[in-house]
Amino acid sequence: MMIVMKPGATPEEVAAVVGKVERIGAQAHVSRGEELTVIGAIGDREHIARLGLEGTAGVEKVVPILKPYKLASREPAHREDTIVEIDGRRVGGRNFSIIAGPCTVESRDQTIGTAHVVKEAGGSMFRGGAYKPRTSPYAFQGLGQEGLRLLAEAKSETGLPIVTELMDARDLESVLEVADVIQVGARNMQNYPLLAELGRAGRPVLLKRGLSSTLEELVMASEYILKEGNEAVMLCERGIRTFETAYRFTLDLTAVPVLKEMTHLPIVVDPSHAAGRRALVEPLSLAAAAAGADGIIVEIHPDPEEAICDGPQALRTDDFAAYVERLEAVASIAGKELSAV
Amino acid sequence: MMIVMKPGATPEEVAAVVGKVERIGAQAHVSRGEELTVIGAIGDREHIARLGLEGTAGVEKVVPILKPYKLASREPAHREDTIVEIDGRRVGGRNFSIIAGPCTVESRDQTIGTAHVVKEAGGSMFRGGAYKPRTSPYAFQGLGQEGLRLLAEAKSETGLPIVTELMDARDLESVLEVADVIQVGARNMQNYPLLAELGRAGRPVLLKRGLSSTLEELVMASEYILKEGNEAVMLCERGIRTFETAYRFTLDLTAVPVLKEMTHLPIVVDPSHAAGRRALVEPLSLAAAAAGADGIIVEIHPDPEEAICDGPQALRTDDFAAYVERLEAVASIAGKELSAV
Amino acid sequence: MMIVMKPGATPEEVAAVVGKVERIGAQAHVSRGEELTVIGAIGDREHIARLGLEGTAGVEKVVPILKPYKLASREPAHREDTIVEIDGRRVGGRNFSIIAGPCTVESRDQTIGTAHVVKEAGGSMFRGGAYKPRTSPYAFQGLGQEGLRLLAEAKSETGLPIVTELMDARDLESVLEVADVIQVGARNMQNYPLLAELGRAGRPVLLKRGLSSTLEELVMASEYILKEGNEAVMLCERGIRTFETAYRFTLDLTAVPVLKEMTHLPIVVDPSHAAGRRALVEPLSLAAAAAGADGIIVEIHPDPEEAICDGPQALRTDDFAAYVERLEAVASIAGKELSAV
Amino acid sequence: MMIVMKPGATPEEVAAVVGKVERIGAQAHVSRGEELTVIGAIGDREHIARLGLEGTAGVEKVVPILKPYKLASREPAHREDTIVEIDGRRVGGRNFSIIAGPCTVESRDQTIGTAHVVKEAGGSMFRGGAYKPRTSPYAFQGLGQEGLRLLAEAKSETGLPIVTELMDARDLESVLEVADVIQVGARNMQNYPLLAELGRAGRPVLLKRGLSSTLEELVMASEYILKEGNEAVMLCERGIRTFETAYRFTLDLTAVPVLKEMTHLPIVVDPSHAAGRRALVEPLSLAAAAAGADGIIVEIHPDPEEAICDGPQALRTDDFAAYVERLEAVASIAGKELSAV
Repeated sequence: MMIVMKPGATPEEVAAVVGKVERIGAQAHVSRGEELTVIGAIGDREHIARLGLEGTAGVEKVVPILKPYKLASREPAHREDTIVEIDGRRVGGRNFSIIAGPCTVESRDQTIGTAHVVKEAGGSMFRGGAYKPRTSPYAFQGLGQEGLRLLAEAKSETGLPIVTELMDARDLESVLEVADVIQVGARNMQNYPLLAELGRAGRPVLLKRGLSSTLEELVMASEYILKEGNEAVMLCERGIRTFETAYRFTLDLTAVPVLKEMTHLPIVVDPSHAAGRRALVEPLSLAAAAAGADGIIVEIHPDPEEAICDGPQALRTDDFAAYVERLEAVASIAGKELSAV
Repeated sequence: MMIVMKPGATPEEVAAVVGKVERIGAQAHVSRGEELTVIGAIGDREHIARLGLEGTAGVEKVVPILKPYKLASREPAHREDTIVEIDGRRVGGRNFSIIAGPCTVESRDQTIGTAHVVKEAGGSMFRGGAYKPRTSPYAFQGLGQEGLRLLAEAKSETGLPIVTELMDARDLESVLEVADVIQVGARNMQNYPLLAELGRAGRPVLLKRGLSSTLEELVMASEYILKEGNEAVMLCERGIRTFETAYRFTLDLTAVPVLKEMTHLPIVVDPSHAAGRRALVEPLSLAAAAAGADGIIVEIHPDPEEAICDGPQALRTDDFAAYVERLEAVASIAGKELSAV
Repeated sequence: MMIVMKPGATPEEVAAVVGKVERIGAQAHVSRGEELTVIGAIGDREHIARLGLEGTAGVEKVVPILKPYKLASREPAHREDTIVEIDGRRVGGRNFSIIAGPCTVESRDQTIGTAHVVKEAGGSMFRGGAYKPRTSPYAFQGLGQEGLRLLAEAKSETGLPIVTELMDARDLESVLEVADVIQVGARNMQNYPLLAELGRAGRPVLLKRGLSSTLEELVMASEYILKEGNEAVMLCERGIRTFETAYRFTLDLTAVPVLKEMTHLPIVVDPSHAAGRRALVEPLSLAAAAAGADGIIVEIHPDPEEAICDGPQALRTDDFAAYVERLEAVASIAGKELSAV
Repeated sequence: MMIVMKPGATPEEVAAVVGKVERIGAQAHVSRGEELTVIGAIGDREHIARLGLEGTAGVEKVVPILKPYKLASREPAHREDTIVEIDGRRVGGRNFSIIAGPCTVESRDQTIGTAHVVKEAGGSMFRGGAYKPRTSPYAFQGLGQEGLRLLAEAKSETGLPIVTELMDARDLESVLEVADVIQVGARNMQNYPLLAELGRAGRPVLLKRGLSSTLEELVMASEYILKEGNEAVMLCERGIRTFETAYRFTLDLTAVPVLKEMTHLPIVVDPSHAAGRRALVEPLSLAAAAAGADGIIVEIHPDPEEAICDGPQALRTDDFAAYVERLEAVASIAGKELSAV
């Protein structure tokens, strides 16, 4: 922490702050300038923050200077990209992964049919929701156990690893039976008991950014998983909430290169939920690949008009192969290759 | 839903939309103007939304026109204010409630001492955290069971009802043993399994607004609790995330009169977490009372400099009685009286 | 500026930064800790910022530590509240000012009639727009010169000072003939040539916060006026743009006590444009007074249903006296008295 | 406008609204459903809005259904892309334009040298600031007339058209002598007198989005220029203000395909001001091209460490040719070719 004293702070006020810092076992380095005095407090960030120095006489402001996350950080020594390996598919590094599937598992035909399309076009994993977080309690909440069963069938038919969401720690066991990657939705990004549970479960996790979470908070949330010993975490940008109302969420592609600087974890982008409309999905997917994302998680459906949920944002399965081709071309300019088995 | 057709939409396009709406059992009312045609679709909102009409030929946009919440709504017939009664204290209507206590339960002395201050100054309930959601996994996470025990003691000493947070449905039973009001924190506002559990538990709930949740989403989240048969829900505004960095969160006081129009549930304001600094807590508390809030939930501490968490935002217990007095004066201009036993 | 070096920064990298800082005539104070090194750079902020140290090898981040505004600042030595005096009315300090009138000047009757209502209820100034900034070029743009003439008449009839907006520096002379206070709208908060012109004109200025301007930017904008020698500047909070769509703008009342700490200039609140709806104007006005505002600028109209602009947000002139009474009661709890001649 | 009545609205309330709408010469179409009644009001949007129907008895809400802009709109009949031609360079359609140069004109060497780099790498226009809008009045404000003279020299040396900013309508004549494209900065997006002046001047305009302006407001601002008869308007996305603090502004690339649907005007992206740091400029530039932008306006400098303004975000002139090459490759996947003479 850096404690900046007010321009007119007295020597006594400075000494009082130094005393407080030292009393909790931290070091204080005083730097006096003509205009102002700054005290660097080196020690446990949490302890120093707890001192509440902002309110102390003579203190102008307190500035944190060290990053609060450790395991997810690039430091020390420019730690290299983590590559998460899922049943032979590699996410991160020079690999570009396409995860595709329907918003929600609806029926056997829809599920298995879509999984085949994903596989043939070169997708690396299959996504599908069995438990759905819905803003309204009156909305369709997913097929639950029956949905998980259909996902298991899709996997055994196509060999594609399964990505599916967990909302409630009490469903962990049944989800673990099917999921190769467990997705944590944006609304649960700061559900800390759930994150810790996933840390202990050890299965790869796709952690979505909360819709008004800062990048630091996203990385801090991943730290809850890493801290329990699970290093297979992928972060996912899926649009943030802003003042704009012309579309659903603002896809934050600046997050991609900035997260790459902050953390060694892979960064995946979900263009479907941000866009909310099919026509925007491809331009945003290509943009994500151009910005350096490690992959895309996208919704596709054989007949979006009949989809139970989020049909308007689903790409048509018929258009998927051509979409993958263009995505591959852009990813290659950004230095990545389609991840394949 | 209102489906607005594009200026040049053909009669065939209009007929196609009408057909789709009617096929799912909803009614379609076509209104043709010189410049444009509008179709009113009356029926299940969820079903109509699922049609994905936004992508259909000739459709300009789809506008929801009915509120998606029912039990929390003022409609029909201007439903009157709900008054939640907690051990003789009334929240809502013409009552103004002051809920106060430390951010987190730290020790017997701090807890019991503070509870006495709250009681003597005319506070109506005692708040204190035993389970704390923290952005960092390395931060203090609350005393847990031991904290609950201290809260129980504070209650038996002072008679004040206890407000405390639940983060994990698996802790519900032990929290129910102590809490008169169960608080749901901002990060859990859309933790739907937790909300449904609280709906079934039947204990009064204080539901905090997520820091980037719209008012409609807040009311929809309360609907998850109400739907299970628990009508004792209080909503809490605690600051939203905006671009401003000169303080912590932007306390949204417009939310108070607007929520009053949307719902019959009581509206409480938390000035402490929004402000983040003691000097801002009183002006914001008075402003909340002036705006028509049904109460305040505020953090106080006998010695904020030594507090384990959020000391800089805690009012001093020594200043609490004078604070309550001014708050009472403003609440009275807004037409409310301090809630007492 | 504080330059925080990366954990592994080498002594050479530190020396290079120090060299750069010193080469432009600033001082560098190096503070070495076990974990990290921090360099305090004391000198011209602009020059140091221009060094672009963020990109330099070994630099983690650069943190500004001195406020960039000077004349508007409370520093040094806790400068006291500025009181702007306008024709005997005092804005700032322990005074509470009510500025009221129609959004736009429409006719002689509406203008003069409303001015009498303002005067009789105890308002201290009369507001009315002659030049209106409108999002659409097809919307009514104000009566212009004819509007100014009607404002002059209202002043000579009631003795109330006139507050009116200037949008274009080329209209300055004609506006100066009528206005006692020149309003700068939110859209022009960063129209620097206009601000400098008003600095030179010397007439009191009411400067509205841009709808996504930070408080620091607002204070910096006032500095453009103060720098030219005009010290009579009042700042105005009028709502900021956030993600919420349940109402028009989010009135930022935390801004009131925070601006009071940052600057000695008076702070006025405009509840009308934030709310956009009449029913919200009174609760927000009372809240602003409770939060410590120095005054309110509010729109009123004898017949809002017939108003040319912003009728839905105008209070009815018939309700104005009772509104002023309640406002006065809350302002008095916050320590202020209605400003009168 | 669509006027949605409350569920329990009486026939008298409906009739009253219809009466109001018809009294101003608009048509009212009533659509009665079992649950609710909707009135479509077809007529002048401004007049109908002025009725302030939101406050009327029985009215739930008023929803605008027609776009408020006309000349900039794709409607009617899917108007084709406007192509702005500047001295042989084409912006819009299948052309991709690279506009590059320093933030501010500093010296003859820097200016002419950089212009040659732009030309050789295949850039289509040269940008450089002579008048600079700066948040602080103490910051460097540009070389003014001397800067314009250097831009003129750069043009005569390289033949590149010049893009430069106008802040004050009173400088229009001298800027017109040099500029082939006049840039309107984000802070002036709603400076309506300036926009109207540029509409009359007839020179191509590059209009930057205000940092918290909606896309509709941006298109409406362009309407101020188009309305005066100047059809050569290019819109520019340059980052919006959000809650995120890990970088400067959030570049809104969803704006690109959405603006393409709303308007026929070309869309250019400025990655430099959004990013604020060199390392982010290339990923964001490639992403913009992938999203379908018609061009990029980017800052480059021969020696960013010595730049007077915004050095940290300037690409190095040495890296520019390779950057253009990668940009060209991505633009080509998005269906565009580098615009050349």
